[in-house]
Amino acid sequence: MLNVGVIGCGGMGKDHIKRLTNKIQGANVVAVSDVFEEGAKEAAALAGGAKVYTDGKDLINDPDVEAVFIVSPGFAHTDSLLQAIEAGKRVFCEKPLATTAEDCKKIVDAESASGKHLIQLGFMRRYDKGYVQVKEALQSGEYGEPLILHCTHRNPEVGTNYNTPMAVHDTAIHEIDTLHWLVDDEYESAQVIMPKVTKYSHSELKDPQIMLLRTKKGICIDVEVFVNCKFGYDINCEVVCEDGAIKMAEPSYPSIRKNASVSTTIDTDCFVRFEDAYDTEVQNWVDCAEEGIINGPTAWDGYLAAVTADALVKAQESGQIEPIVTAEKPEFYK
Amino acid sequence: MLNVGVIGCGGMGKDHIKRLTNKIQGANVVAVSDVFEEGAKEAAALAGGAKVYTDGKDLINDPDVEAVFIVSPGFAHTDSLLQAIEAGKRVFCEKPLATTAEDCKKIVDAESASGKHLIQLGFMRRYDKGYVQVKEALQSGEYGEPLILHCTHRNPEVGTNYNTPMAVHDTAIHEIDTLHWLVDDEYESAQVIMPKVTKYSHSELKDPQIMLLRTKKGICIDVEVFVNCKFGYDINCEVVCEDGAIKMAEPSYPSIRKNASVSTTIDTDCFVRFEDAYDTEVQNWVDCAEEGIINGPTAWDGYLAAVTADALVKAQESGQIEPIVTAEKPEFYK
Amino acid sequence: MLNVGVIGCGGMGKDHIKRLTNKIQGANVVAVSDVFEEGAKEAAALAGGAKVYTDGKDLINDPDVEAVFIVSPGFAHTDSLLQAIEAGKRVFCEKPLATTAEDCKKIVDAESASGKHLIQLGFMRRYDKGYVQVKEALQSGEYGEPLILHCTHRNPEVGTNYNTPMAVHDTAIHEIDTLHWLVDDEYESAQVIMPKVTKYSHSELKDPQIMLLRTKKGICIDVEVFVNCKFGYDINCEVVCEDGAIKMAEPSYPSIRKNASVSTTIDTDCFVRFEDAYDTEVQNWVDCAEEGIINGPTAWDGYLAAVTADALVKAQESGQIEPIVTAEKPEFYK
Amino acid sequence: MLNVGVIGCGGMGKDHIKRLTNKIQGANVVAVSDVFEEGAKEAAALAGGAKVYTDGKDLINDPDVEAVFIVSPGFAHTDSLLQAIEAGKRVFCEKPLATTAEDCKKIVDAESASGKHLIQLGFMRRYDKGYVQVKEALQSGEYGEPLILHCTHRNPEVGTNYNTPMAVHDTAIHEIDTLHWLVDDEYESAQVIMPKVTKYSHSELKDPQIMLLRTKKGICIDVEVFVNCKFGYDINCEVVCEDGAIKMAEPSYPSIRKNASVSTTIDTDCFVRFEDAYDTEVQNWVDCAEEGIINGPTAWDGYLAAVTADALVKAQESGQIEPIVTAEKPEFYK
Ligand SMILES: NC(=O)c1ccc[n+]([C@@H]2O[C@H](COP(=O)([O-])OP(=O)(O)OC[C@H]3O[C@@H](n4cnc5c(N)ncnc54)[C@H](O)[C@@H]3O)[C@@H](O)[C@H]2O)c1
Ligand SMILES: NC(=O)c1ccc[n+]([C@@H]2O[C@H](COP(=O)([O-])OP(=O)(O)OC[C@H]3O[C@@H](n4cnc5c(N)ncnc54)[C@H](O)[C@@H]3O)[C@@H](O)[C@H]2O)c1
Ligand SMILES: NC(=O)c1ccc[n+]([C@@H]2O[C@H](COP(=O)([O-])OP(=O)(O)OC[C@H]3O[C@@H](n4cnc5c(N)ncnc54)[C@H](O)[C@@H]3O)[C@@H](O)[C@H]2O)c1
Ligand SMILES: NC(=O)c1ccc[n+]([C@@H]2O[C@H](COP(=O)([O-])OP(=O)(O)OC[C@H]3O[C@@H](n4cnc5c(N)ncnc54)[C@H](O)[C@@H]3O)[C@@H](O)[C@H]2O)c1
Repeated sequence: MLNVGVIGCGGMGKDHIKRLTNKIQGANVVAVSDVFEEGAKEAAALAGGAKVYTDGKDLINDPDVEAVFIVSPGFAHTDSLLQAIEAGKRVFCEKPLATTAEDCKKIVDAESASGKHLIQLGFMRRYDKGYVQVKEALQSGEYGEPLILHCTHRNPEVGTNYNTPMAVHDTAIHEIDTLHWLVDDEYESAQVIMPKVTKYSHSELKDPQIMLLRTKKGICIDVEVFVNCKFGYDINCEVVCEDGAIKMAEPSYPSIRKNASVSTTIDTDCFVRFEDAYDTEVQNWVDCAEEGIINGPTAWDGYLAAVTADALVKAQESGQIEPIVTAEKPEFYK
Repeated sequence: MLNVGVIGCGGMGKDHIKRLTNKIQGANVVAVSDVFEEGAKEAAALAGGAKVYTDGKDLINDPDVEAVFIVSPGFAHTDSLLQAIEAGKRVFCEKPLATTAEDCKKIVDAESASGKHLIQLGFMRRYDKGYVQVKEALQSGEYGEPLILHCTHRNPEVGTNYNTPMAVHDTAIHEIDTLHWLVDDEYESAQVIMPKVTKYSHSELKDPQIMLLRTKKGICIDVEVFVNCKFGYDINCEVVCEDGAIKMAEPSYPSIRKNASVSTTIDTDCFVRFEDAYDTEVQNWVDCAEEGIINGPTAWDGYLAAVTADALVKAQESGQIEPIVTAEKPEFYK
Repeated sequence: MLNVGVIGCGGMGKDHIKRLTNKIQGANVVAVSDVFEEGAKEAAALAGGAKVYTDGKDLINDPDVEAVFIVSPGFAHTDSLLQAIEAGKRVFCEKPLATTAEDCKKIVDAESASGKHLIQLGFMRRYDKGYVQVKEALQSGEYGEPLILHCTHRNPEVGTNYNTPMAVHDTAIHEIDTLHWLVDDEYESAQVIMPKVTKYSHSELKDPQIMLLRTKKGICIDVEVFVNCKFGYDINCEVVCEDGAIKMAEPSYPSIRKNASVSTTIDTDCFVRFEDAYDTEVQNWVDCAEEGIINGPTAWDGYLAAVTADALVKAQESGQIEPIVTAEKPEFYK
Repeated sequence: MLNVGVIGCGGMGKDHIKRLTNKIQGANVVAVSDVFEEGAKEAAALAGGAKVYTDGKDLINDPDVEAVFIVSPGFAHTDSLLQAIEAGKRVFCEKPLATTAEDCKKIVDAESASGKHLIQLGFMRRYDKGYVQVKEALQSGEYGEPLILHCTHRNPEVGTNYNTPMAVHDTAIHEIDTLHWLVDDEYESAQVIMPKVTKYSHSELKDPQIMLLRTKKGICIDVEVFVNCKFGYDINCEVVCEDGAIKMAEPSYPSIRKNASVSTTIDTDCFVRFEDAYDTEVQNWVDCAEEGIINGPTAWDGYLAAVTADALVKAQESGQIEPIVTAEKPEFYK
């Protein structure tokens, strides 16, 4: 039984606590922490009882806590991560690893120096059956080398606090991690194209956007990011290879004939769309705890994502092709 | 140029006249006939001018008329057909051949006796691209012998004049002809199953119905006939064979994402669904005129359809499996 | 933690033991039993250690065993069930409840008499996401009353020990349970139509078969049962209602473009197709243990299935419409 | 009856001659011309007899010729077009209008100066049912303004004579015309992205390519041009709008279940894919002859295509965003 402490008891935090308590095998939530104590207490109840902290550092250093979940806001991740590395405790950290590439690098250096693989990042799409099926098809060799990816990340609507860079940091960040993993390559450059803006957007948000990524082997990726598309939460991914094209399955719903139409449902909620992936990634993190390995996205992947995101945000501004320059991948992460 | 006379200038008649005049190569409408003279005159105008008759017999005997279209109501077909056979003129006759199996047999006997292949029946589905593709797949041999067919003939709604037997004579009559042609076999027995009646029907109409047909080789066919289905004009056909199953393509429409749905249109009008088939069957009849052959459904097929329809209507009443007993197929039609 | 004893350590038994041990929350396998002791020992190892029995009765009466899984061959279920009822222990029993309707009735009477809801039957399709989505659509009221169901149960191939009645008892038995649950009605009559036999069958097996069921409200169901279809394990279900038609989603796989085709995979293994349903039904049985309720298929459903199966086997022989006559549903099961 | 003369009796020329002779209503091929006399004679036979010329100018000036088809190689179009304008004869000219933007402008100026609308260009996709359905959906207003188009032009394979610029001039030229017509806007800039090259290409051909076009209203278009994709002739078009997304229907083929797959055919031949469009565009040109109007792509559209193509070829080389600068659209073409 892995005893877990959860830092950050907001929306995502409570969701993970319920998951760890009711669905995941082999883990127990023994402690929770939130700057907002009331929230931490509610979370403790969801866990069927747990120690309540208001300082994540205290939770991390609690000897009863064997492993730590970090689900506080992005800006608060770095401190908790460095503390957890210092305490030698295994971590599941919700994306992003940290809010700057610099902080990500700090965390990577600290983890490498510790000599222990401790950090798994919450990029759950790597565990989504749809993406897994595509990766298996790619690895079968039946379709040759991948050359082009066409993707969409469409969302029904966002509020007025959502601005242009958030399309990278909050939305496309998932594609940033998933797609290079899918084709097993590294990014080299980024470009963002700004089409005509939808009438449903507002002055601080260019929507939709077309984000282009190029990998070192020359695989070219286009991602349509459309956060006020109105019609649904619609994630697509097609990989065009030398011997065929592979398109990710859409979520399965019944086919309905009514009103001169045959139609199937499109999800409107990302938590419905990736429901199973959240469960699978956490179960995988728990299952690998005994061996002390990280099977999923690592801190290094978090660093790569941060550098790539920075290049995309720069490209949003410049309209140019921006290089993506990362440090050399440490042996530790190979 | 084939000079055609059209008997029956109602809905279908005018439709065929426009077709012959504007779309079909190598044919001209030179005469029209209708008991309702005003209708015949309107039809003549659609043909860009044509002789007007009120008696089909006169049209048939007009030396300028080389070939005859029969588009009068079903009960009026027999006389015109026998007259045309007597005059040795080529005929395109809208379904049904005649309203009784007995009359159908009379016509078959007369045509055989004449020694000339004159009559093509308007069962247009044999020319529909969807069905043609299925037949080609069957004939390729790649899928082995056909064993089972699952079909639907769904229609949005019918009026209060539409009664239970019309589900056979007016609606399923198309499946009756098309399906035995598709699998190249003859019917042996019929059964009709009456489910719970839809609230949209009325006292004189059991709707939906499940019509079962068995062929001599043992191919079993189920046809769901649902004439008040509300949602559209929805024709389906799946052939289950020893080595695979073949499902007829649905009409192609764009795929639309809107309102949390991805959907495509279902036709609501049978004339839209089979638009091209009407053109193709008539062009084929004109093209074969010079050679004096009939490539499409023959009077014999009309007779087979009538006998099968009678068995189905009997089965509607009895709830039993009713035999389908036809005369021996004359050499003339082999 | 529910302590479970498993009777029957063959293919399905080991599968359930692994499930209970590794996937299911809140249950532990503490005892296993098999007439074949070696198999029971292997099964005990899969459970991470468990008591080994060769007599199911001893396992049932073991005070450490709180609940019993019956996964022995069908003919052995009755005795174990009666023993478990006598011992007042909760049961998960793989289908069939028993091999005769008479034995099913005995079990139903015994369970009712005990006053305790103890038995859940392993008809897992009620927990399959595909069927659940269809049932939700039906219950929404948006589509009106169900009138007709079109279903297929296709399997790639079976061995020479598989005979005509097994198409009912072993294969269609799942549709027998699932479909009446789907439309919330009871069966009234059965008919079986035997088409031409596939070249891939053998003398003791008529394959394919069309099984027709009619419910008391008049809903008519056709099930194509084709156990040597060659091409895959292909389960379909379409419900035609007054205001629309609902077709169950097919399992989701990527769409592949290669060799002048766009294609998706069809499962070939029923355990892959219904993988999640097995997990969900067992978790549900465990979750309801504390409250002592049965949320899933009951012994009464097992009895209904047995009577329906008998009628279908009779119909296979007679070619007639056979009545399905069940006893009055006891209050206990309402 | 429109008397047509055809210049250029190669592959496409003979195809059009057969079309005009056997399928098109209201037109006759009365004269043919080819620098290769033998080819012209064969073509004359296909037309059921026609005057044979070796000089297109003579054909144009033949008083019996009322309208001219230009199906010679692209470089030979300009002279024939200027001659036809001078002779005041209606023209159907296969794409391209001319091989340089400069020559296109000459032709546009000549036609405008003549005061007569004479030239229709053979961009047949505007008549393809798939594209027409998309345009109708856009014009319905139900989906709001178009913002993004995602397109593919995939071809199984090309020979070693096919080089990088041909991906624009020979292949994407169709998208260049169709897409601006689809969204009723003008191009503003072009960019070409060169991914990793497929192993099936050769040193003179970068394949695949991603061609990006931006319109004046800001609609951003991506076209994947992949001429050695191996798997088929696969044309796709999705228009993402403010209120929904519209994806062009794929050609309809039966759905086949075999070998653990459910699949439909992908065309491998562009002449099959656009078969009907060729018929429709020519019939439309003939139908409008009496009124003397051009309903289809005009010489101006040919000029726009040439300028756009030049920008794309430049962009292939530079890797930069290249502006598309056209002359002011003359009143004559509004
Ligand atoms: N993987 C995904 O798809 C996904 C989805 C949603 C959120 N997330 C990530 O989860 C994290 C939390 O997101 P959320 O939606 O729950 O946000 P939220 O704002 O609902 O919750 C954040 C919680 O953290 C608390 N908090 C603030 N500062 C803290 C600190 N220093 N220490 C401890 N707790 C602190 C807040 O009081 C609040 O309860 C973010 O990193 C976010 O990016 C990931
Ligand atoms: N193939 C198909 O899908 C299809 C579709 C519709 C109709 N039909 C067939 O076409 C035929 C006509 O159908 P409709 O829908 O045009 O019917 P309608 O009632 O619209 O027209 C029938 C016309 O025939 C005229 N008429 C009546 N008796 C006549 C006679 N003795 N001689 C000449 N004309 C006579 C009527 O005045 C009327 O104008 C029927 O046989 C029908 O089954 C076939
Ligand atoms: N729900 C489903 O889809 C599904 C699928 C497969 C099997 N089943 C059911 O599971 C049960 C077992 O099937 P299986 O495939 O594992 O069969 P199996 O033949 O592989 O295993 C049966 C096991 O029971 C043992 N056994 C025989 N008699 C016994 C007895 N009296 N007491 C205890 N054990 C005894 C045998 O030694 C054998 O190990 C059957 O009822 C079958 O119908 C259900
Ligand atoms: N719309 C389409 O999809 C499509 C498809 C194929 C070709 N085309 C166009 O059709 C035209 C012809 O293409 P093709 O495939 O038939 O080429 P082709 O090479 O098969 O035929 C060209 C013919 O023109 C003749 N020719 C050469 N110079 C001539 C001249 N000065 N005057 C008269 N004839 C001359 C040649 O002898 C030859 O017979 C080209 O413009 C091409 O772009 C369009």
